[in-house]
Amino acid sequence: MKILVLNAGSSSLKFQLLNMEDESVIAKGNAERIGIEGSFLTYKANGKAYTNKYLMPTHVEAMEHIIATLTDPEIGVIKKITEISGFGHRVVNVGETYFDSVVVTPEVLEDFKTKVDFSPLHVPGAISGIEACYKIAPKIKNVAVFDIGFHKTLPDYAYRYALPKEDYEELKIRKYGAHGTSHRFVSQECAKLLGEVEGTKIVTCHLGSGSSMCAVKDGKSVDTSMGFTPLEGLVMGTRTGDIDASVVNFIAEKRNMTAKEVVNYLNKKSGMFGLCGYSDMRDVEANLETNADCKLAYDVMCYRVIKYIGSYAAAMGGLDAIVFTGGIGERDPQVRETVLSSLKFLGVEFDAEKNPSVFGDFGELSTENSKVKVYVIPTNEELVIARETKDLIK
Amino acid sequence: MKILVLNAGSSSLKFQLLNMEDESVIAKGNAERIGIEGSFLTYKANGKAYTNKYLMPTHVEAMEHIIATLTDPEIGVIKKITEISGFGHRVVNVGETYFDSVVVTPEVLEDFKTKVDFSPLHVPGAISGIEACYKIAPKIKNVAVFDIGFHKTLPDYAYRYALPKEDYEELKIRKYGAHGTSHRFVSQECAKLLGEVEGTKIVTCHLGSGSSMCAVKDGKSVDTSMGFTPLEGLVMGTRTGDIDASVVNFIAEKRNMTAKEVVNYLNKKSGMFGLCGYSDMRDVEANLETNADCKLAYDVMCYRVIKYIGSYAAAMGGLDAIVFTGGIGERDPQVRETVLSSLKFLGVEFDAEKNPSVFGDFGELSTENSKVKVYVIPTNEELVIARETKDLIK
Repeated sequence: MKILVLNAGSSSLKFQLLNMEDESVIAKGNAERIGIEGSFLTYKANGKAYTNKYLMPTHVEAMEHIIATLTDPEIGVIKKITEISGFGHRVVNVGETYFDSVVVTPEVLEDFKTKVDFSPLHVPGAISGIEACYKIAPKIKNVAVFDIGFHKTLPDYAYRYALPKEDYEELKIRKYGAHGTSHRFVSQECAKLLGEVEGTKIVTCHLGSGSSMCAVKDGKSVDTSMGFTPLEGLVMGTRTGDIDASVVNFIAEKRNMTAKEVVNYLNKKSGMFGLCGYSDMRDVEANLETNADCKLAYDVMCYRVIKYIGSYAAAMGGLDAIVFTGGIGERDPQVRETVLSSLKFLGVEFDAEKNPSVFGDFGELSTENSKVKVYVIPTNEELVIARETKDLIK
Repeated sequence: MKILVLNAGSSSLKFQLLNMEDESVIAKGNAERIGIEGSFLTYKANGKAYTNKYLMPTHVEAMEHIIATLTDPEIGVIKKITEISGFGHRVVNVGETYFDSVVVTPEVLEDFKTKVDFSPLHVPGAISGIEACYKIAPKIKNVAVFDIGFHKTLPDYAYRYALPKEDYEELKIRKYGAHGTSHRFVSQECAKLLGEVEGTKIVTCHLGSGSSMCAVKDGKSVDTSMGFTPLEGLVMGTRTGDIDASVVNFIAEKRNMTAKEVVNYLNKKSGMFGLCGYSDMRDVEANLETNADCKLAYDVMCYRVIKYIGSYAAAMGGLDAIVFTGGIGERDPQVRETVLSSLKFLGVEFDAEKNPSVFGDFGELSTENSKVKVYVIPTNEELVIARETKDLIK
């Protein structure tokens, strides 16, 4: 069985074709600059990489070129589109009626359209991606896998804000979290390494340009750092993370901005970029010695990770393992060292010599004596989406 | 030497006269409903309590009645106003140029007036209180003691938000914290009990209708839960505490409110009151068994305290002692039990049988085997202000 996983942004459509017999990736790529001048398609298969320019005014043309490429007699990997058993779509958040993955019937899709508000930057792209699939391959089933899905199990005292009750009941304001497929995948892999799920207390750190952390108890997400939107929590590339909410009004008044503009500014002009001018941790680290702003951005980012680990250990009443994943988690030994060095009081001991050699691959960083296991586990969100899709189209 | 400590709100003026030879309280009271119909003065001295109605259109009249009462031939405790050596004023926050207590010259007072924005609900009252003292006793020195003062020692990575640099440099947006005199007092008392200051890691929990926590390392505040304003951090009587900042815009749009109105709503209509309709923890607890909303408010409030303790243990790299203070901290054994029961992983062991008997007084709750000491220490903010005043008027 082959599943095509699709991750649609407002102007992009990432894809990955998986063979579910052995869960291997057959081909992958990305349609970029959809609806913008200079659109192009990247494609990798059989060890080769291709880039082609195509006119792609909408996700429909992008989908047409993806399918044409996958079925191309020369560079393709399948003969006909019908070899694909299902499309698995990443959908960020359409509210708490959709935690569990779902087959997207036209009725469900219409319902999604009424719930764009929960993730206005992401959901319209996903809807376009699903509509493109309907048009091009009306007989192939579409499954939506939600970024918030893994956080369905949060207890009410973790997901409710201390807002008037009607803000939850009418407006559905609550903590939803994100990166759920990533936290689910790496925490499941970690539980395999620990030998059991029941009784385990794991903190997963998905650190990248967007970052979030998750407390996973007995295999279930019990708390996570992103909130109503991905703005809350850790300091990210351009997002401020946790901040006194009254700052929104203060900046609005002082800088003559609307609340909407301020929230946009907190999402896109803040974070490490706001502090030092670099949103990419590699640039921040390259200037650590010479640029005090970069030092501050690095310190603020790591400090927040350290505090969340302590906070989640308290939330779960202990800690068995810490998992690093995501671009920074998998490939930034310096951040891992800064964070782990602060956790001796929890019994964390790590191999500082081995740490730099773990780069983009699986690795155990904890020493034999460590009371807490520490792993680097590369995430695989596409695989989670493909597995969910496979289960639902049966 | 006698010091009169004054804590002015927008419509109230609390006072306490202290004898600094033995740090005892000679008299205390409160002028309430200043500028509002039905203003009155409460007064306690020599074991007796009095309440008198006076017309008090401004803080000047309030101050006149306070002095007249203190020097009253029958119920007074001093003969002449000149027996008072100094006025000590609580000032919440006038920005990071004023962490250290200061003698308030007319120039300093003028400067305060340009910095009301840092605490618009509190500073105007304090200014009125100081001006009343100028008018009534021009020869007695006034000292301002800042609520943020103890948090001067926060490292930059703890007090900076991940906002564009200019928001800190121009607008001075940063974490300031509050309840500094309380955290200072109880952490110093705790350090005395531990026998040393250097090397100690203490978390102080000031829990009341306003609540905040503080990480105190080597006797210095290194992190605190309130932020740019007292809105951030723990769930309080009517304040929401930590929340995704994007909620401000979401509520503004959905409920047709301005950002300012939303921030006011997060301060005054949220917290436990928003969740269950009661802002007082005693009411919340009275309805815990029968009202699911009260149960949720209780759980959310305690969960946040538990998480901050873990977070601050991680921030300091360990934990030697936890201190409870404030109305709830001193008088709510149930909250203390809920919090402490979750901290076994840190080596916290407490005496559950003794806990209910510690009510408004000092008490040690930790058992002999506990790795972390746990104390209830009644706070004394007035004494801290009086001591600072005494030191500065010399």
